Amino acid sequence: MTEPTKGTPQEQAEILMQALPHMLRYDDTIIVVKYGGHAMGNEEVARRFAKDMVLLEQSGVNPVVVHGGGPQIGAMLTKLGIKSEFASGLRITDRATVEVVEMVLAGSINKQIVGFINAEGGRAIGLCGKDGNMVQARKVTDSDVDLGFVGEPEKVDTTVLDQVLGRELIPVLAPVAMGADGETYNVNADTFAGAIAGALGAKRLLFLTDVPGVLDKDRNLIKELKVDDIRRLIADGTITGGMIPKVETCIYALEQGVEGVVILDGQAPHAVLVELLTDHGAGTLITR
Amino acid sequence: MTEPTKGTPQEQAEILMQALPHMLRYDDTIIVVKYGGHAMGNEEVARRFAKDMVLLEQSGVNPVVVHGGGPQIGAMLTKLGIKSEFASGLRITDRATVEVVEMVLAGSINKQIVGFINAEGGRAIGLCGKDGNMVQARKVTDSDVDLGFVGEPEKVDTTVLDQVLGRELIPVLAPVAMGADGETYNVNADTFAGAIAGALGAKRLLFLTDVPGVLDKDRNLIKELKVDDIRRLIADGTITGGMIPKVETCIYALEQGVEGVVILDGQAPHAVLVELLTDHGAGTLITR
Amino acid sequence: MTEPTKGTPQEQAEILMQALPHMLRYDDTIIVVKYGGHAMGNEEVARRFAKDMVLLEQSGVNPVVVHGGGPQIGAMLTKLGIKSEFASGLRITDRATVEVVEMVLAGSINKQIVGFINAEGGRAIGLCGKDGNMVQARKVTDSDVDLGFVGEPEKVDTTVLDQVLGRELIPVLAPVAMGADGETYNVNADTFAGAIAGALGAKRLLFLTDVPGVLDKDRNLIKELKVDDIRRLIADGTITGGMIPKVETCIYALEQGVEGVVILDGQAPHAVLVELLTDHGAGTLITR
Amino acid sequence: MTEPTKGTPQEQAEILMQALPHMLRYDDTIIVVKYGGHAMGNEEVARRFAKDMVLLEQSGVNPVVVHGGGPQIGAMLTKLGIKSEFASGLRITDRATVEVVEMVLAGSINKQIVGFINAEGGRAIGLCGKDGNMVQARKVTDSDVDLGFVGEPEKVDTTVLDQVLGRELIPVLAPVAMGADGETYNVNADTFAGAIAGALGAKRLLFLTDVPGVLDKDRNLIKELKVDDIRRLIADGTITGGMIPKVETCIYALEQGVEGVVILDGQAPHAVLVELLTDHGAGTLITR
Amino acid sequence: MTEPTKGTPQEQAEILMQALPHMLRYDDTIIVVKYGGHAMGNEEVARRFAKDMVLLEQSGVNPVVVHGGGPQIGAMLTKLGIKSEFASGLRITDRATVEVVEMVLAGSINKQIVGFINAEGGRAIGLCGKDGNMVQARKVTDSDVDLGFVGEPEKVDTTVLDQVLGRELIPVLAPVAMGADGETYNVNADTFAGAIAGALGAKRLLFLTDVPGVLDKDRNLIKELKVDDIRRLIADGTITGGMIPKVETCIYALEQGVEGVVILDGQAPHAVLVELLTDHGAGTLITR
Amino acid sequence: MTEPTKGTPQEQAEILMQALPHMLRYDDTIIVVKYGGHAMGNEEVARRFAKDMVLLEQSGVNPVVVHGGGPQIGAMLTKLGIKSEFASGLRITDRATVEVVEMVLAGSINKQIVGFINAEGGRAIGLCGKDGNMVQARKVTDSDVDLGFVGEPEKVDTTVLDQVLGRELIPVLAPVAMGADGETYNVNADTFAGAIAGALGAKRLLFLTDVPGVLDKDRNLIKELKVDDIRRLIADGTITGGMIPKVETCIYALEQGVEGVVILDGQAPHAVLVELLTDHGAGTLITR
Repeated sequence: MTEPTKGTPQEQAEILMQALPHMLRYDDTIIVVKYGGHAMGNEEVARRFAKDMVLLEQSGVNPVVVHGGGPQIGAMLTKLGIKSEFASGLRITDRATVEVVEMVLAGSINKQIVGFINAEGGRAIGLCGKDGNMVQARKVTDSDVDLGFVGEPEKVDTTVLDQVLGRELIPVLAPVAMGADGETYNVNADTFAGAIAGALGAKRLLFLTDVPGVLDKDRNLIKELKVDDIRRLIADGTITGGMIPKVETCIYALEQGVEGVVILDGQAPHAVLVELLTDHGAGTLITR
Repeated sequence: MTEPTKGTPQEQAEILMQALPHMLRYDDTIIVVKYGGHAMGNEEVARRFAKDMVLLEQSGVNPVVVHGGGPQIGAMLTKLGIKSEFASGLRITDRATVEVVEMVLAGSINKQIVGFINAEGGRAIGLCGKDGNMVQARKVTDSDVDLGFVGEPEKVDTTVLDQVLGRELIPVLAPVAMGADGETYNVNADTFAGAIAGALGAKRLLFLTDVPGVLDKDRNLIKELKVDDIRRLIADGTITGGMIPKVETCIYALEQGVEGVVILDGQAPHAVLVELLTDHGAGTLITR
Repeated sequence: MTEPTKGTPQEQAEILMQALPHMLRYDDTIIVVKYGGHAMGNEEVARRFAKDMVLLEQSGVNPVVVHGGGPQIGAMLTKLGIKSEFASGLRITDRATVEVVEMVLAGSINKQIVGFINAEGGRAIGLCGKDGNMVQARKVTDSDVDLGFVGEPEKVDTTVLDQVLGRELIPVLAPVAMGADGETYNVNADTFAGAIAGALGAKRLLFLTDVPGVLDKDRNLIKELKVDDIRRLIADGTITGGMIPKVETCIYALEQGVEGVVILDGQAPHAVLVELLTDHGAGTLITR
Repeated sequence: MTEPTKGTPQEQAEILMQALPHMLRYDDTIIVVKYGGHAMGNEEVARRFAKDMVLLEQSGVNPVVVHGGGPQIGAMLTKLGIKSEFASGLRITDRATVEVVEMVLAGSINKQIVGFINAEGGRAIGLCGKDGNMVQARKVTDSDVDLGFVGEPEKVDTTVLDQVLGRELIPVLAPVAMGADGETYNVNADTFAGAIAGALGAKRLLFLTDVPGVLDKDRNLIKELKVDDIRRLIADGTITGGMIPKVETCIYALEQGVEGVVILDGQAPHAVLVELLTDHGAGTLITR
Repeated sequence: MTEPTKGTPQEQAEILMQALPHMLRYDDTIIVVKYGGHAMGNEEVARRFAKDMVLLEQSGVNPVVVHGGGPQIGAMLTKLGIKSEFASGLRITDRATVEVVEMVLAGSINKQIVGFINAEGGRAIGLCGKDGNMVQARKVTDSDVDLGFVGEPEKVDTTVLDQVLGRELIPVLAPVAMGADGETYNVNADTFAGAIAGALGAKRLLFLTDVPGVLDKDRNLIKELKVDDIRRLIADGTITGGMIPKVETCIYALEQGVEGVVILDGQAPHAVLVELLTDHGAGTLITR
Repeated sequence: MTEPTKGTPQEQAEILMQALPHMLRYDDTIIVVKYGGHAMGNEEVARRFAKDMVLLEQSGVNPVVVHGGGPQIGAMLTKLGIKSEFASGLRITDRATVEVVEMVLAGSINKQIVGFINAEGGRAIGLCGKDGNMVQARKVTDSDVDLGFVGEPEKVDTTVLDQVLGRELIPVLAPVAMGADGETYNVNADTFAGAIAGALGAKRLLFLTDVPGVLDKDRNLIKELKVDDIRRLIADGTITGGMIPKVETCIYALEQGVEGVVILDGQAPHAVLVELLTDHGAGTLITR
């Protein structure tokens, strides 16, 4: 609180007031936020994100955080001298690699986010898919080469999350899960978030990325899309490259039962609050 | 929402953030707000007040509203041609008068406030001291003349309020109560609020008045006071006139178990929010 | 208890015993009692009615009281010099009138009934349709002229009643409700009672009127009727005049889910107890 | 219900009304009724007693029945040709005898009472001191001769009763218990009832006997007694014979925490109802 | 614990470990054990059985015991000089007989089993079909002669059992029930157990008999059977004599909703534990 | 289950029976198990340990696992080329080191134990002291040199553990915690376990070490010790070296409210089961 306070008391009160209808709209709903990659870049952004989560909780919303950690995993693999091979751009994950993945995701990043949220007055609880058998994974096999210990969600058991939600605890989830074979699998964080959001019947799944959302051919942000629009935009070449798997995960999440998915820029300050608690909105909202 | 939106999305988010530590401070606490007289003056102020209550509820606070209604009672007595006699400035309340008091407080004003809160997305429940035997009154007898059906709280039973609080319902209370003798008594709204706040172990009791708070001899607002300070300020003539019974009620409320009492200007826009959710504070805070 | 005690101890015990099978029949069920008009006439009748409600509660039944107040409203309008125009016998309710209606119903009559029930050892809680958003009204538009702020139930939300019932609290309800337009509407008390009874799945809705029930052509009481019988009796001119809207409201209540509706004479002493807790029954029972 | 109905509907309602203040007085309290000996004499009396229990339950009271069964035990011992020796009027209870005691009390009488209560619309649950380790007994050793398997309550564990009370179940208890030594003990039913009533914090313990209560020297019923009065009346020879152990058990029960103990005539029809639900009262009330 | 301890600590721990997958398999399920006849023969066997029940409870299983008592009933009838007539091998049960049946089952045997379980550290609660209206019986009428007070289950109300199960209480049930006619009926213990197991959705119903299970023509134990197999084995003369009604009761229980029924030898030490908590199994398992 | 089964069915059942009194003794109690160092050595031992935890849970006990991980941390520091300085045998923990500590403890070891427990049919939930603000640490300052981010428990908040215990979830805790200063601290696992066990009112805290327990001067195991004995044995040189801080932590845990602490050999197969569920016991039991 060392920064100068923004606005007169009057203005502050009025701006709080502007947030009220938005708070009421998301009251008692579950909002899953996928937070990762560049959006986790520096500590200031990370602390601001943590504060956003506490404010959501305090405003009657139940946030659930799912995080990735690609850059940190890569850095640790390098430090440890573990070389990765790639197939069609995907990292082949052998046992040594998946052990580093779990260690970095569930041990470093997860607890760091928990710590940041708690430091802002919240109460976070860091878990991975193994805890309470929350997510059971199966090996991804639809790839040309054997990707090793790369999994996808097969079953979600929300028992532990149900005990936690609605009691002022903010779950923070690392996308690591166990298979029926007893092996540890690395699960794509977007897919993991989609499966969790679906199983919880979330009202929104927010993908914090490093782009403003889905852009049209003139590079302008598209504010709202239906699933059918997406299929058309892929067909006509508007959606390309890395955005294709991202929107496909959005469709997957909608199929799992999420009401709406938003792709937005996680580096924009307080992007989550702007999306959920202001009239402006942020990014692209995708619904069925 | 027809007014132009205040601030850029960034500014809005930052101002929400500034409110967070205050929300956390009052999280799950009970705040009793005495709302009355001139502060209930016009509809715009009344609707703004209702919105404040909904925002508090949505921010994790449990507000309880106690209202007065002197001007409306006076107007109705006049319309009905009921003349009041006064003794040392207090209205002598005969049976016909107390019936009008109850009708106006519990029927008109109470339900109007309930309606305003509900219109803003809240869920209010309007009650008086009779409901669920919440407050039992006894006749005020320490006056020189017989004031009639003027009572003071003798017993408070919070059973009904306990069922209501913490379930997203906002109680709105009219200061009318029944005596052990089966008679209806008009209770001073400040005293009623103090008794309720004490019985509920409220963190704050806010008296919305038409002055900024307690002023010093130079007419500057005193920000904080202890009970002992008050006694001294009465003795040295700083606190005078109508402020004396007001601060005495503050002391009574503190004795009943309230943690802090604030006297503030109910006509200042969003005075409650400024007091509770900004760094500024409003009015005079009185503690033990 | 100043009256002489009725019966020898033996007789008293035997008469209590006679009530037992009836108590068991209504055990844990909800009984909505519409209480109004002439049945609310004098204080003695009103106190006896209050006692009946406490005895029901104590016998394992959950009573809910809905009251009217036409005569009192009329008297107050007269005192205030507010003139009413009528269209086909219905009062045209302008804004000034509806404010008086709410004030008298929710402020005077409601709290008086609450007070009487509490005085007999019960625990009543007085509410109107606005409280907790219990009833949302819509403007009645099927009339030839614009009746003003006359509404009918559009939605019933029993959340607040569900919290109250089964906890030894007796709800007392004033038939005033808010529209989606934010306006206050006066709702016909019979219709209000039917909507509440339907939403609560009441076992009985008792209409306390000033006639013994539905009479046949020889002016003898008809003990039981089916909905089809009623239609026939209207067609053949047996049911006429003010009884027609009354039985139509009965049919409406049965359609909302009430198991049985009884029209009985509210001025007969302890009519409710005679109907529910003795072998005799009172009035006309209407079922599907 | 084949008997002619007593009273006009009016009278019935008024007599119900007379019971209301008594129902309110005992609302939600526990009343332990010791029922035994001659009071269990014939089936008609037994069914009437069962009905009384159901009416109490239905009136908001929580009755607990403790029964004896001396005559039935004696008859069964005779049939089985088991001879009893007596010491100072007390039966010496060998192993064969205690097995018959348990069989008759817990198997015949207990289930007969359960059956009668259920036939009247109640829901009884028959238990003995062994069930759920409710009562642990210790051998009575303050007698001149070895009485065998005669025990007194050493510990009462109300866990099972707590689960049952307040859920419309009426516990019916046979005074048989297990010792820490694993043996079965016959416990005096009065003492058993006193221990249970004390552990449950009962408001009343009713001893249904075959006399009207404690009588004075002129054979008139004494309505109320304090413990000190009793001591004086024993000293001056007013209380004599079998009434002495009875009043000593009353004192024991009061020491265990019961609020009041009543000695009354169980053969008088509906004695329990007359005592609890009428203005008359029955028998002698003993308090601390 | 005076016997020498079996096995080294290591062996003990390993054998406990072997039980774990079985405990997990029956975790939180209901196992109804019909225990009777010769299996109740001597005290040592009975105490061992009690211990088995406590161990099941402690291992996460919810056991429910239903007991018979033919030999004890026969012995008591003889002692009391009550002669029984038989029709097609079934005892004609007149009123005197059914009274003895109830007394012995609910008073002697039931409380003895309760006592044994409690002595081993468990918490048993002994009930019969009358308690809490658990089982309503109807007269068996499909016999050539009038069998008197012999009944079969007509309705099962598990309310009382539901309150008891899962709270570390072990219900012990005597197969006596009341009819809608208010009469007491003796119910075949196997049928009673089948009805209770079905109503509770038990995972297993164990019939402890005095044979190892269903045998094939070479007198070898058949480990598993389907209902269709049974029909075939009866048709081809493999299953004969007293085993026929036994397997028919198994089929009845499966139809009521039990997942599996096991016929096993109750005299074999710890037969229940061997069946449920070891790899071996015991007796014949019958499923749909 | 591929190993040959140990014992005949009879022997298995009898050995289960021998465990029953021990299960009853620890029924519904909390047992904290500190598991670490060499006891975590190889996978077979680790899986056996996991199975022990599931068996405890299944036997009515509530186990809580606290783990260390010194060797694994050392190995990872070496791999990453992070050199540690030591002061009086304690590692000086700079920021880079504490990050590795957290990563290895909370990410690798914690989730590995969770996985093993789940693989055996249990339901584990892996947490560290940061989660739900369970443990707040403060910097250890009573050392001659600055040890860096080495902390000790300052406050324990069991809210999250209370939600988890008694619901068939096994908490597995990594001894990492946050300070009021927002820094991450490495806490000694023994101390962490003692603080948790004290806050939970554990019945036992088991320290799995690599020695059989406290030995006397002849190298024989001492079975039981009081706190005073320990002080004497340190004074007279019986307890020396690394055993001194170990027993001091035992005393600390007893002061926090633990009923008994056991030092035992974690490498002995099923040491926990032998200690808790057999007559033998293992190691040294220390009580106040």
